[in-house]
Amino acid sequence: MRKGATKDQIDHVVDRLRERGYGANLSGTEVSVIGAIGVLDDDKARLAEQLASLPAVDKVVPVLKRFKLASREFHPDPTIVEVDGLRIGGGDLIVMAGPCSVESEQQLLSTAHAVKAAGANVLRGGAFKPRTSPYDFQGMGRDGLELLARAKKETGMPIVSEVLDPHDVELCAKYVDILQIGARNMQNYALLREVGRSGHPVLLKRGGMYPTIENWMLCAEYILREGNRNVMLCERGLPVGGGETATRNVLDVSAVAVVHEISHLPIIVDPSHGTGKAAYVPALARAAVAAGADGLIIEVHPDPERALSDGAQSLDFEQFGALMKSVERLRPQLAD
Amino acid sequence: MRKGATKDQIDHVVDRLRERGYGANLSGTEVSVIGAIGVLDDDKARLAEQLASLPAVDKVVPVLKRFKLASREFHPDPTIVEVDGLRIGGGDLIVMAGPCSVESEQQLLSTAHAVKAAGANVLRGGAFKPRTSPYDFQGMGRDGLELLARAKKETGMPIVSEVLDPHDVELCAKYVDILQIGARNMQNYALLREVGRSGHPVLLKRGGMYPTIENWMLCAEYILREGNRNVMLCERGLPVGGGETATRNVLDVSAVAVVHEISHLPIIVDPSHGTGKAAYVPALARAAVAAGADGLIIEVHPDPERALSDGAQSLDFEQFGALMKSVERLRPQLAD
Amino acid sequence: MRKGATKDQIDHVVDRLRERGYGANLSGTEVSVIGAIGVLDDDKARLAEQLASLPAVDKVVPVLKRFKLASREFHPDPTIVEVDGLRIGGGDLIVMAGPCSVESEQQLLSTAHAVKAAGANVLRGGAFKPRTSPYDFQGMGRDGLELLARAKKETGMPIVSEVLDPHDVELCAKYVDILQIGARNMQNYALLREVGRSGHPVLLKRGGMYPTIENWMLCAEYILREGNRNVMLCERGLPVGGGETATRNVLDVSAVAVVHEISHLPIIVDPSHGTGKAAYVPALARAAVAAGADGLIIEVHPDPERALSDGAQSLDFEQFGALMKSVERLRPQLAD
Amino acid sequence: MRKGATKDQIDHVVDRLRERGYGANLSGTEVSVIGAIGVLDDDKARLAEQLASLPAVDKVVPVLKRFKLASREFHPDPTIVEVDGLRIGGGDLIVMAGPCSVESEQQLLSTAHAVKAAGANVLRGGAFKPRTSPYDFQGMGRDGLELLARAKKETGMPIVSEVLDPHDVELCAKYVDILQIGARNMQNYALLREVGRSGHPVLLKRGGMYPTIENWMLCAEYILREGNRNVMLCERGLPVGGGETATRNVLDVSAVAVVHEISHLPIIVDPSHGTGKAAYVPALARAAVAAGADGLIIEVHPDPERALSDGAQSLDFEQFGALMKSVERLRPQLAD
Repeated sequence: MRKGATKDQIDHVVDRLRERGYGANLSGTEVSVIGAIGVLDDDKARLAEQLASLPAVDKVVPVLKRFKLASREFHPDPTIVEVDGLRIGGGDLIVMAGPCSVESEQQLLSTAHAVKAAGANVLRGGAFKPRTSPYDFQGMGRDGLELLARAKKETGMPIVSEVLDPHDVELCAKYVDILQIGARNMQNYALLREVGRSGHPVLLKRGGMYPTIENWMLCAEYILREGNRNVMLCERGLPVGGGETATRNVLDVSAVAVVHEISHLPIIVDPSHGTGKAAYVPALARAAVAAGADGLIIEVHPDPERALSDGAQSLDFEQFGALMKSVERLRPQLAD
Repeated sequence: MRKGATKDQIDHVVDRLRERGYGANLSGTEVSVIGAIGVLDDDKARLAEQLASLPAVDKVVPVLKRFKLASREFHPDPTIVEVDGLRIGGGDLIVMAGPCSVESEQQLLSTAHAVKAAGANVLRGGAFKPRTSPYDFQGMGRDGLELLARAKKETGMPIVSEVLDPHDVELCAKYVDILQIGARNMQNYALLREVGRSGHPVLLKRGGMYPTIENWMLCAEYILREGNRNVMLCERGLPVGGGETATRNVLDVSAVAVVHEISHLPIIVDPSHGTGKAAYVPALARAAVAAGADGLIIEVHPDPERALSDGAQSLDFEQFGALMKSVERLRPQLAD
Repeated sequence: MRKGATKDQIDHVVDRLRERGYGANLSGTEVSVIGAIGVLDDDKARLAEQLASLPAVDKVVPVLKRFKLASREFHPDPTIVEVDGLRIGGGDLIVMAGPCSVESEQQLLSTAHAVKAAGANVLRGGAFKPRTSPYDFQGMGRDGLELLARAKKETGMPIVSEVLDPHDVELCAKYVDILQIGARNMQNYALLREVGRSGHPVLLKRGGMYPTIENWMLCAEYILREGNRNVMLCERGLPVGGGETATRNVLDVSAVAVVHEISHLPIIVDPSHGTGKAAYVPALARAAVAAGADGLIIEVHPDPERALSDGAQSLDFEQFGALMKSVERLRPQLAD
Repeated sequence: MRKGATKDQIDHVVDRLRERGYGANLSGTEVSVIGAIGVLDDDKARLAEQLASLPAVDKVVPVLKRFKLASREFHPDPTIVEVDGLRIGGGDLIVMAGPCSVESEQQLLSTAHAVKAAGANVLRGGAFKPRTSPYDFQGMGRDGLELLARAKKETGMPIVSEVLDPHDVELCAKYVDILQIGARNMQNYALLREVGRSGHPVLLKRGGMYPTIENWMLCAEYILREGNRNVMLCERGLPVGGGETATRNVLDVSAVAVVHEISHLPIIVDPSHGTGKAAYVPALARAAVAAGADGLIIEVHPDPERALSDGAQSLDFEQFGALMKSVERLRPQLAD
């Protein structure tokens, strides 16, 4: 309560708690602090909003995390997501690589073979592309999915690809092994529920209008709550403020450490979108691995200058090979 | 180009432009500047991405706006959206008011009558609610839409209500007069296309992961491009940075002036979400009107302390009546 | 405390409080909440930091505002700062106007006469300029101060001008009536203390690395604590995030309402820096007045295209005259 | 220029360039692009501001970097700052460690010995503390400097400590080997000039109201321009936006890669302030090293729970020892 809150104002808050069946604990000397007791999970956010609007209430502080299924408290052991025999979150470093967009058979297959040879585990490639402008290339759609399936057949690598529309979840799930939710769709609840219902492995990028770690966990919760435990998180950079132009985003490497503390879900890092500049991708990939990431997702293209991309720059095959080697040198030093 | 770019590097950029059929203009003394000539609208973003990745390219600067249908250059006269005989954008101030969520018949109808009596023109009320947590109240759904239809029948006020899922657009369009796209869905392109195809009036809130005015215009462009010209914009506050807790968002009042300069679309201001605190709503409503807003959207509830809300606080009937009076006193002074 | 905190961990926190002479109040069922009782003002921040680092502590929530002298609780009546007979904060709208930089006698005097004729009350003009680059014009220094003194003598208008260096406070205080602390120096504590000791009226712009309203109040507190009660606040826009280029900053009009609620100090609004674009200054000036600002500060120049400016664009005399008229029409409608 | 700019408007811009003695290059088909030729370094920012205010000017794009002395173009080899025989920037990893604040002889000396034993190269410790609130501990001042000198005498380690006030530069330079400019003072130009004049090694933290990398380089330029080449940069985290509470700041690890590309100055990373949570410091320290940082600066305290800190949490001696070992394991893998 605010300093100088009257007894009536305090009683008013207590009454509100009681009429909902909750207890109230009063403490504080200079100012009054009212503890709400027994509040139901489903009622927490609503109650907080309502209390915040009562007279002389200074602030409402939730004392329990708002997410549960995604929390380490609820599930102390790390989750391992199995994808075609690959174990993500189990201690190995998983590398997902491939072009931003599927452009042609030749482009996709050559990249798939090259990244596999360099040691990548999963092939990425966009068939449906979220584009800031309606005039930009929107992806090959179903044809792109067909090409991804062919690349999988040839190389044996599982596929990760973005889904944009709840309508397309069923279609995408037929072709791809991991459904990616892009940063702009993090809080697209209709889509989260739909991928949740699919039971398919999901890669949930951090983003949305308020890209806090708690909000990200709550979005994972939307998927988990549909009974789908195969959720992986992906850090891909936060918007930069105040006119920064050196990078497109700020990759939040600390998210790796935070997620490992509060959640059991695996975390993958995307330095390609995270910086938006190819030149910085290898340094950031090493940083992510050194911080303990469970995996990387990297854009690779046979001819980066001609890549159809949307905010990230691709590495060529040679650069990607060098990145894989530098990352592999680090790994054994991190054990302990 | 960067300082010290070689002739080969410059030629390489020029060759890239030529192989796409564009011209190139070279200028600059200390550094070389290459102008791309004749670039097609649909190719701009892709070309910019690709040029940015070429060796020795320092930066790529688009010289033309990326949106067209939403621009004042394309359509110099202000757009007037007609909703049930109401003209939005035609010079009058339109006020949309009502509860955050439809909760019950009694709550909705009493609010509808009260805001109408105070001078509001459109009734707002959420039937489908986007909630940060899956454990929060998600709205009454179709039952909420039925109640909104009843309120319209009783009061004659047209209805604005949010749609979250492309699946629901057809259903919502049957019951409501203006389809609202919430801030978290600004860049939900599947949803934008669907409301575009509906032809129904749309209220597009500013938001998303990169809530710049250009991105907002490009989202309007997604709707306009489907042939739906009935688009209204809504400023509802930007995320605050660096630990601010005094307000939930920063209402960007300057957006009113910017939008009126660069676009022909009407702009509505939402001070309820824009500040998140009921106490500041009247001052911000006056500010928006003084800046030239075409309308306001305000949360009103018979008992604000019990409102099921999501980040905004409601005014009670008396407070709303006082707000309407203070706003009406300002209007005649703004003419000219 | 975190969920699952052990009795030992809880006792450890309580012991820490006791060894500093404070009481402890325990509450909570699912999680433990420990209230610290009797904490001294000077110890609050330090204690909070220390408690936050104890094992199993989830978060530390200060229940009292960290500022006192600047708070309305401490001083319920609005502060009126008297400057040469002018009363700022007393209900009248005060307008400060003039060039960004003092450039020449002719430029300053013509502007001073023009803004006075249009109704401005205070003349602004920079003699010491904070410039992002060391290669930019740094102001006329002492010569600029001399010109400001001459302009005051001719027009009778008091002067506001920025001071950058604690060394210069004494010098500036001889020439100018209001010492301005710029946004980049909001948290320059050496400078705040020095203007505090001077006893001179101070205009404190909001800014710094974490420009929250609480931090701004704490900076005012630095000045007030030196015994100088003549503090005015100035809102001048927050950095825009995520690549916005339509305006340079986002003017936080809601700050006017927030400051009037929590503090007794007058608040002036600077739409020139707040938007960075001359075209939007009149709309934002009207918005600030409608929100209840105690004053405006506006950049005006005889030939705006030739102004030596730093992030704001100036109005010419005619535009400023029109702004004054539109603002004056609003004022009577805001009474009560 | 904007689309539809008239010949008169274009001529007006060209005339403005000519009257300042610059050339003009016209290009563009759909829109006109005017290149300014021969612009003097000292005139760039001013010219850009002025051109931006001319009629029909759409935007002004500087084609050359605004900093020079700090740029790699100007000085291709990495700068090595020598401090008491220690070479910073020369390929070795330098570790600065010690308490946030100097609190007592016992606290400082025990820490100095401990961090030296663990392999640290430089002792940190604050004697003058910038505190958000005037009620917080402001440091031991001159007594703190004396204790730092004693610690140096005992351990042989050079000292880094923050200076807040231009008045104190001379005093501090007598006692400490590296003058630290804190994040809140990055754009305190009076202070930058004073440490520049001192010739003393400087550690310049990134911060200020607009903490872009370009602004940081321009602040380094203020120091370099006084003839002081001993400048080191320090990345210490950016403010988090939109309500994040998991960390205090977002450590921008990509700054390491960006600085190494555009500048010759060494870059040190501060994970203690960069995350604000002790638990995340080791992971971020490893990440910074993996990204190529020239050094680390870490807060260490004999009893972290009792540390007088300001936004960072300290490691204890054992945690710091473990961090040093994990970092040392990484280093050999990063060669080449």
